[in-house]
Amino acid sequence: MTYTIRFLPHDKTVEVKENTRLIKAAMDAGVHINASCGGEGVCGKCRILIEQGEIEGGISEHLSEEDQSQGYRLACVSRIKSDITVRIPIESEVDTSRLNVQAGARHTAEAMDFNVDELRQEGLFIPPVEKIYLEMSEATKDDHQADLARIVDHLRTHHDEHRLMTNLNLIRKVPDIIREQDFKVTVTIIRPVREDGKNEIVNIEPGDTTDRNFGIAVDIGTTTIYGQVIDLQTGEPLGQHGEFNAQISYGEDVISRIMFATKGDGLEVLHERVMDTINKVIARIVKKAGIDKDEITTITLAGNTTMTQLLLKINPKYIRLAPYVPASIFFPPFHASEVGIDLNDHAVALFYPGVSSYVGGDIIAGVMASGMYREEALTLFMDIGTNAEIVIGNKDWMVCTAASAGPAFEGGGVKFGMRAAKGAIEDISIHPQTYEPMIMTIGNVKPKGICGSGLITLVARLFETGVIDNSGKFRQDLGIQRIRQTDEIWEYVLVYKEATQLDRDIVITEPDIDNLIRAKGAMFSAAQTLLEDVGLTINEIDRVILAGGFGSYVDLESAITIGLLPEIEAERVTYLGNGSLLGCRMNCLTNALRRDVGNVVNMMTNFELADTPSYMDHYMGALFLPHTELDQFPRVKQRIDALRSGA
Amino acid sequence: MTYTIRFLPHDKTVEVKENTRLIKAAMDAGVHINASCGGEGVCGKCRILIEQGEIEGGISEHLSEEDQSQGYRLACVSRIKSDITVRIPIESEVDTSRLNVQAGARHTAEAMDFNVDELRQEGLFIPPVEKIYLEMSEATKDDHQADLARIVDHLRTHHDEHRLMTNLNLIRKVPDIIREQDFKVTVTIIRPVREDGKNEIVNIEPGDTTDRNFGIAVDIGTTTIYGQVIDLQTGEPLGQHGEFNAQISYGEDVISRIMFATKGDGLEVLHERVMDTINKVIARIVKKAGIDKDEITTITLAGNTTMTQLLLKINPKYIRLAPYVPASIFFPPFHASEVGIDLNDHAVALFYPGVSSYVGGDIIAGVMASGMYREEALTLFMDIGTNAEIVIGNKDWMVCTAASAGPAFEGGGVKFGMRAAKGAIEDISIHPQTYEPMIMTIGNVKPKGICGSGLITLVARLFETGVIDNSGKFRQDLGIQRIRQTDEIWEYVLVYKEATQLDRDIVITEPDIDNLIRAKGAMFSAAQTLLEDVGLTINEIDRVILAGGFGSYVDLESAITIGLLPEIEAERVTYLGNGSLLGCRMNCLTNALRRDVGNVVNMMTNFELADTPSYMDHYMGALFLPHTELDQFPRVKQRIDALRSGA
Repeated sequence: MTYTIRFLPHDKTVEVKENTRLIKAAMDAGVHINASCGGEGVCGKCRILIEQGEIEGGISEHLSEEDQSQGYRLACVSRIKSDITVRIPIESEVDTSRLNVQAGARHTAEAMDFNVDELRQEGLFIPPVEKIYLEMSEATKDDHQADLARIVDHLRTHHDEHRLMTNLNLIRKVPDIIREQDFKVTVTIIRPVREDGKNEIVNIEPGDTTDRNFGIAVDIGTTTIYGQVIDLQTGEPLGQHGEFNAQISYGEDVISRIMFATKGDGLEVLHERVMDTINKVIARIVKKAGIDKDEITTITLAGNTTMTQLLLKINPKYIRLAPYVPASIFFPPFHASEVGIDLNDHAVALFYPGVSSYVGGDIIAGVMASGMYREEALTLFMDIGTNAEIVIGNKDWMVCTAASAGPAFEGGGVKFGMRAAKGAIEDISIHPQTYEPMIMTIGNVKPKGICGSGLITLVARLFETGVIDNSGKFRQDLGIQRIRQTDEIWEYVLVYKEATQLDRDIVITEPDIDNLIRAKGAMFSAAQTLLEDVGLTINEIDRVILAGGFGSYVDLESAITIGLLPEIEAERVTYLGNGSLLGCRMNCLTNALRRDVGNVVNMMTNFELADTPSYMDHYMGALFLPHTELDQFPRVKQRIDALRSGA
Repeated sequence: MTYTIRFLPHDKTVEVKENTRLIKAAMDAGVHINASCGGEGVCGKCRILIEQGEIEGGISEHLSEEDQSQGYRLACVSRIKSDITVRIPIESEVDTSRLNVQAGARHTAEAMDFNVDELRQEGLFIPPVEKIYLEMSEATKDDHQADLARIVDHLRTHHDEHRLMTNLNLIRKVPDIIREQDFKVTVTIIRPVREDGKNEIVNIEPGDTTDRNFGIAVDIGTTTIYGQVIDLQTGEPLGQHGEFNAQISYGEDVISRIMFATKGDGLEVLHERVMDTINKVIARIVKKAGIDKDEITTITLAGNTTMTQLLLKINPKYIRLAPYVPASIFFPPFHASEVGIDLNDHAVALFYPGVSSYVGGDIIAGVMASGMYREEALTLFMDIGTNAEIVIGNKDWMVCTAASAGPAFEGGGVKFGMRAAKGAIEDISIHPQTYEPMIMTIGNVKPKGICGSGLITLVARLFETGVIDNSGKFRQDLGIQRIRQTDEIWEYVLVYKEATQLDRDIVITEPDIDNLIRAKGAMFSAAQTLLEDVGLTINEIDRVILAGGFGSYVDLESAITIGLLPEIEAERVTYLGNGSLLGCRMNCLTNALRRDVGNVVNMMTNFELADTPSYMDHYMGALFLPHTELDQFPRVKQRIDALRSGA
């Protein structure tokens, strides 16, 4: 059920689902309510008056009986049960005109959809690993063909299967298994990526097991490893799980991992750590999916170039030494167990190819998952993280580049930065006159830090309300207590310690903002440089795809306000989520995709930003909010002008 | 130097090489000299008179000074240094006429020659594993192609190499090795057996190592494992060594090995034992050849079906259960280290395919080595051993079969039988009147037993001289001491214990002879049945090829006399030696042969003797010397008739 919530006195409305908390509806509508406890009903600041409609909860010791009887509730603990009209109490209202030009409603990007039925209709649903059930005639005195030859002949004559090959492990199983159910067996066949390749018979099971064929998709992130079980009959995911990459203890980023790997037995250690994590993830998802590990026939993996080389135990040393050359960008299919993946010998591992040392298989997986390589439309694909990777192109051409953005988007290098976990502040509003914050946390608990998307919104709000200027410096003349100097560093108090889970105030400092500006500047200028390299402007781009967990949470207007994303209509932006994982899932389901991957990699032109002199100019220009060239952000300029003129 | 030796009074001559011992020359000429000590000069019986010419040695305490001055010498210790005329002392002569129809000169088969130059001329010298030296341009700021892609591109553009693939082990080596000598490397490439297959890059070394490319050929015998290092540049063998298959402790023949393998961890144990032996052989031959083990790029193996399955750890159970089905007859190339062969990961193992449970890869290797599959001429190929395998055919068709002959040809099941080792009696003559033996041993030392080829000659001589009849029974009326009954078993004393290395007389018994007759009967009747199956007689066969160590030593006339071989002119018989090993060597040198192997296996029709009712009839008929149907042996009949009529 969806209900309409009307906020007075601003007369803003928003559509939300049943059970949405009122404070969230207010945030989505762009309506400010003072709130600092993250939504647990602790601070009691978010008093609102229900003028019409039905809510559940909302009662608290912070409300007197009289307040309650008048219809006052706490917005953070009120759940919507009907269309509602809500009034924001007058005590926090000063200048309504100005409130009306406040930041618009939150707008996250639409999620991309991946449709298995569509694949089927297009005839592309051809898993690279298939099972075939054979009912063969038994060996007799007059027909003592060798067991394997019997299977191969039967496949040829009854199933039109040719160019068959096999391996020793399979041959070892054949004699016993073929006799277990009177020469009725199911064989597992790996399809070649090219039609003139060989079909490898990799497994044999007694009887008919064709309905038990499962794949695993794995995204090998520098920070996190996600795995997903896929039913190769239906194409549906059955269980998913993520774990921190255990390599983290040896360095947070790829460079420190590479440095560790090149000393002593570092490569071996990192290889083992990532294997431990992968095997832990596999154990969990297999359990969640309720299947037997031996029923896994395929595992598709993608990671950045460093993660890929560490997993495959390939010395990554030259990735970080000029001229930054990876060992390989293509990897042959191999037996998963060969590298230590805890799956049966017959499970084949398919690794996504990359493009260069800094544009890896995870990006290619995302590009494949996005489908941009099959479309006429010009797409700007951005994977936002510690390393920012950007791809531009369509079905005819593609270019890519990578920039080091630093860890700010993941909460790194920011005093109270944290990963997107329970207690992280993920949304913020700042009152344009009082500069009082309204915050929401993940899990609606007392805050303990700020996650990446929260940071972006925070900086956008601080900028819009004039708490900081376009270089990210605090305005010291506002005369409010929340802006203060500690140890000679200017900061803004977002939450006082009483309302936190911590023993100190949660603040954002000028160095924090500076780090975020550098990160967004790297990202934006990389995109700008790449566009310029191919002679395009952002206006010629038909759509923007955001990959990475980040893209699904970030408020688009905030991201544009700070100049992380170019100014483009929200409708033209979609988010892919974990594009790497999705690409891996697709790879398990359609061999046609595997063929396309090679073509995409081969047509992709890699630009090294270090080789492009204009990159540094663009970067310097991007170290402002939203940018030195405000013409690139007409909408932001207009809103800021309105806010400032209203002040 | 070759000299002519003339024996008087028989006036027989023979051509022999310088330094040949006179007793050997006599044996070759078919001249009998009493001798029982094997050639050590111990018994002093082989007195001869040098009438003309020069010898070295021949003096002994058994000769008085007077004898010596007259020109008497001991034949066994006299070495030929010129043309010589020798007189056999009159004391052992009784009836010259009869001596002249004695067994003819020894005639072993001509060895087949394998000519590398011929292969080159025919354009067939294409080792399945080749090395190519690449001088690539270095990676730079403007050319940061991935290392592997650089190699693949260079191979494509500079060496016309296409359809290239690789593996993880190779990729792991690339980054460091490519930089060791400034992007100058040698890559090792495995050629596909079919032209539409893939070329796999399996190794990379710094600099130019193209002159260091070696292969290993291995014959996996039930009893013995032979290995040979081959220089893949020249095609020449560099070092060879044989060891007893350590599986022997678990059973002498394939059936007992299969039985052991199917209990508990028997398969694992037998697999490990054969690996131990192979690795021991490899260590030895690599040392002999003076090369580094890592320089081995190829290992080609052949064995019978049971040996093959045990080595590859494939349950051999169904080989001995009706309907006698092997797991597979074809085996894909694999990394040698994968099965425990102690070679570097990059060494590829190629296993010869077989035809059936009892005609294995060793026979196919022999067939390939013999070249019979490329010729118009009809060939009868016989591998004589515990298991007798027979192939008939030419370039257009081929049939094969196998029979269990028992161990008699290898000295098994014979009281004083032994393998062909030092002290084994390998040649025998029996005086037609005195029935006194003349023996020669391997190594010219005192005898301790009789080897397979010695047994055949012994039985032939006993039969020709009438010591035994055509059913192998002793004539008890000859009135000589050497024929006697011990524990109710009739026997002939070949050497009295004083002249042996043992503490007892060396004899041949009726059961010994019976075993040999059964063995030769199985062999002969298998060939006869197979000929009959394809509507041919022995007269239509253009040549006979004997494979197995046995074939190179056996005296052809003796083998025909006892009916082991059909009566065919000696010139039409060639021996292949270890055909399995030779086939493996060829396989290392020419990929064209690998292509042919598949065709040969596919065109080979396997006959199961158990399914051919006439086999038992033929077998019963063959249990006589030489055969019940004497018409099949006209030459033998003629000689026997002559001998008997002279008596």
